Amino acid sequence: MTDASGPAQGDDSFHVFDTTLRDGAQREGINLTVADKLKIARHLDDFGVGFIEGGWPGANPRDTEFFQRARAEIDFRHARLVAFGATRKAGVRAEDDPQVQALLDSGAPVVTLVAKSHDRHVELALRTSLDENLAMIRDTVAHLRAEGRRVFLDCEHFFDGYRANPGYAKQVVRTAYEAGADVVVLCDTNGGMLPAQIQAVVATVLADTGARLGIHAQDDTGCAVANTLAAVDAGATHVQCTANGYGERVGNANLFPVTAALELKYGRRVLPPGALAEMTRISHAIAEVVNLTPSTHQPYVGVSAFAHKAGLHASAIKVDPDLYQHIDPELVGNTMRMLVSDMAGRASIELKGKELGIDLGGDRDLIARVVDRVKERELAGYTYEAADASFELLLRAEVDGRARRHFRTESWRAIVEDRPDGTHANEATVKLWAKGERIVATAEGNGPVNALDRALRVGLERIYPQLAGMELVDYKVRILEGRHGTGSTTRVLVTTEDGEGEWSTVGVADNVIAASWQALEDAYTYGLLRAGVEPAEEL
Amino acid sequence: MTDASGPAQGDDSFHVFDTTLRDGAQREGINLTVADKLKIARHLDDFGVGFIEGGWPGANPRDTEFFQRARAEIDFRHARLVAFGATRKAGVRAEDDPQVQALLDSGAPVVTLVAKSHDRHVELALRTSLDENLAMIRDTVAHLRAEGRRVFLDCEHFFDGYRANPGYAKQVVRTAYEAGADVVVLCDTNGGMLPAQIQAVVATVLADTGARLGIHAQDDTGCAVANTLAAVDAGATHVQCTANGYGERVGNANLFPVTAALELKYGRRVLPPGALAEMTRISHAIAEVVNLTPSTHQPYVGVSAFAHKAGLHASAIKVDPDLYQHIDPELVGNTMRMLVSDMAGRASIELKGKELGIDLGGDRDLIARVVDRVKERELAGYTYEAADASFELLLRAEVDGRARRHFRTESWRAIVEDRPDGTHANEATVKLWAKGERIVATAEGNGPVNALDRALRVGLERIYPQLAGMELVDYKVRILEGRHGTGSTTRVLVTTEDGEGEWSTVGVADNVIAASWQALEDAYTYGLLRAGVEPAEEL
Repeated sequence: MTDASGPAQGDDSFHVFDTTLRDGAQREGINLTVADKLKIARHLDDFGVGFIEGGWPGANPRDTEFFQRARAEIDFRHARLVAFGATRKAGVRAEDDPQVQALLDSGAPVVTLVAKSHDRHVELALRTSLDENLAMIRDTVAHLRAEGRRVFLDCEHFFDGYRANPGYAKQVVRTAYEAGADVVVLCDTNGGMLPAQIQAVVATVLADTGARLGIHAQDDTGCAVANTLAAVDAGATHVQCTANGYGERVGNANLFPVTAALELKYGRRVLPPGALAEMTRISHAIAEVVNLTPSTHQPYVGVSAFAHKAGLHASAIKVDPDLYQHIDPELVGNTMRMLVSDMAGRASIELKGKELGIDLGGDRDLIARVVDRVKERELAGYTYEAADASFELLLRAEVDGRARRHFRTESWRAIVEDRPDGTHANEATVKLWAKGERIVATAEGNGPVNALDRALRVGLERIYPQLAGMELVDYKVRILEGRHGTGSTTRVLVTTEDGEGEWSTVGVADNVIAASWQALEDAYTYGLLRAGVEPAEEL
Repeated sequence: MTDASGPAQGDDSFHVFDTTLRDGAQREGINLTVADKLKIARHLDDFGVGFIEGGWPGANPRDTEFFQRARAEIDFRHARLVAFGATRKAGVRAEDDPQVQALLDSGAPVVTLVAKSHDRHVELALRTSLDENLAMIRDTVAHLRAEGRRVFLDCEHFFDGYRANPGYAKQVVRTAYEAGADVVVLCDTNGGMLPAQIQAVVATVLADTGARLGIHAQDDTGCAVANTLAAVDAGATHVQCTANGYGERVGNANLFPVTAALELKYGRRVLPPGALAEMTRISHAIAEVVNLTPSTHQPYVGVSAFAHKAGLHASAIKVDPDLYQHIDPELVGNTMRMLVSDMAGRASIELKGKELGIDLGGDRDLIARVVDRVKERELAGYTYEAADASFELLLRAEVDGRARRHFRTESWRAIVEDRPDGTHANEATVKLWAKGERIVATAEGNGPVNALDRALRVGLERIYPQLAGMELVDYKVRILEGRHGTGSTTRVLVTTEDGEGEWSTVGVADNVIAASWQALEDAYTYGLLRAGVEPAEEL
């Protein structure tokens, strides 16, 4: 049904185009830093999308910085970086429009231009003539092409525009294509379409214009995935999606079910070999970066997506699980949960060990103990997907049969005081043991966690000077079981770096300070192991 | 496009069939009491579905009790109650099968029978012959019909079965229809189908059997809504759905987008007049009963479904909102929301003021001041799109020219102590002024923020007894500019409720405790304003 090779390197016949960083970021509640965007870009490149739309350079400084840093810091294996922007302003030459220049300055090899294709929008929102809109498209595409950029053109509100004035909508497509746009993307910007409508319009536009067409669907009718596939059925060869369907209002076509359907239902290789099996991990990792709980009921990748309530079907599932699931969940890196509960199966633990350079040598008892421990900890709120370093510490403790650390915590205390003048005093005291010595240290900081972090370093740096080279660079807090107010369990993820690399650790406790302390303990323990320092304390 | 009368009383030409209480209850995490089921049945009847599948009487005592009580306690205006059960066991007469008898005993006027239509399932799960399976269907349908019941027959795994053995699958349909089933429902039990497949199979089965067909779609490909509509396109006249798409694994076809599409996109009246405008309320009410947070991003009914973030569009939205939304949100009882963010311009502030019932009267200076204030605060890390209540306090302070509060903070202190035995002590002291009185209060909590919250309430409840009715229900922490480690800015979002509604507030500070305190101050200030209490303190 499928060929195993995946799309050939440089195969341009079908585009998986991701716009999580641009259109996905429009989702209410998402607010991405440049660091977040770089992390997500790495995950998307790992997943193997062909294009990553990174933002609108020039429109805001964050996006401009993203393009600079992405080019400098990320060695893309699969994806090409895409800058998003608008056609030139009315009455201005494309080469004189600073917004167009910013697209070139971004250094992205591909540019997506958004253009109006609905006559009323040209008049009411753009406030220019229908002809000038066509000229704006023609000039901007031609200018970017002349500057060596590949150009895709997003026809905003295409389907509503087509309904109102099909002739003009098609003229926009023709104009862009003739000016040199590689793909003309038909956008259901308001998201009101249904698959049958999408299919009919795409087929007609394809027949009438001969342009290479793409599809950009919003999920307002709950049909964005189906609408995307309907466009492919009608001949579109470029799909615009976002990870987990993030996007404005209801959201965008979800990258994961769209690519899963193309690979598994259509038998079309649109991702690199092996990518599909990373889908669940990458979906959850991106959710962590944007600080949203991964949807438990998301198709293919949700923890419930292959969960069977025990009962009637149990014995038949034992005979033949394929009778009760539409695909083998392992194809997308997920698991059937009635048989093997939770994500950490034996195989993934063994693979993970290999990845970390720890040979578990097929030791079934050991692997079973690790699986049990991971399940128990994840039930308590830990997450190891986003905390590799904490997982490695857990794994080493099971392999060694004991947990060894460079220091042991006796107790700590943090005080936060809001003074009448509005300033805050943050003070922490830690009591630790290291190399047989009892250490008491106190420090101030600009928050209670920062004060604890400093007290720990003040106390330990004399014994472990390597700590001076380590720095906390990221810190995330997530309240679990979010409907209990301030009394709930708190999970903290900390990222630390030592100039050569970074690592992430996790802590879970009844309050944010205690969870942070756990994550700090793991962070410095792992950092010292990385630095080659032997742990001296038995826990 | 539509006729205003809605489906005539007793119009049987199209069935909206709800199975929230039976198949929806299979969702992981849902566990309904009889009282819950009765509440949901009332909501579904209010919404105007034609059929409510209440459960499997006889299979468990809860469902048996539900049918007794529903008949006695609910005066259904629109819906008929449906009992769900299986065909008779192999080798037993239908009239001797206690499970079939329980369906009759339920008193439900309609029975849905589930039957196997996939040959392998007959052999492996049912362990009987293909012929006996047909006899079981024939006998059970005939028996229930003879007892005066209307019968629908669910063909389990129909689409997979059709792929494996189309002849047998169609024979099942014919057998049921000829035995007297009113509707034969084709079920995509494993949820693996895509719309084009559904449409082709439904069309063929309809042509080949002449049976009245229904559709039951699961959402494993993310296409359940589209699959349901594809079946309707092919001639199905009975759709099985669940409220909010609740169901096993990923879920079922969602009742709300399916009926909204039929009413608003197809122009087909499938609900009583006025029902559509109740959709948002009923969706949220059912979520409350099953104790799940309503999905913010659900099509049509989510709070984000008509929320606009992009500042660019705001001025055009003022000219003509229909250019930027696929339907008028009021048609489904929802509202357009402008998200105030740093991208927001004057137009969106004015729209937002209108939404909150604060007339800015086109006062350009005032609006400009608010825009500046929002930009300045968002630059500092505040976000108002997720904190309507804090935004309203900001707006009122600008309109009034002064910020008034019910209490004033002199200072506070929080202490978190990790003891050598691993337990934590959390204590907070607050010093406040309210109605000219100085209040000092101390409390413990299960975290520092919880301790501060309790101390605030301990101190103020005597003066403002309304606080007793308020509760913190959600708490979110976000570290901003995440690459600075624990020294970064912290943003806290708090959601509070008073039994009648909920509101969200934001705090930003150099540490999580101070940010939480700000969000708490806003939360209780807004809550007291909601309760009609005049603020007494000038800030």
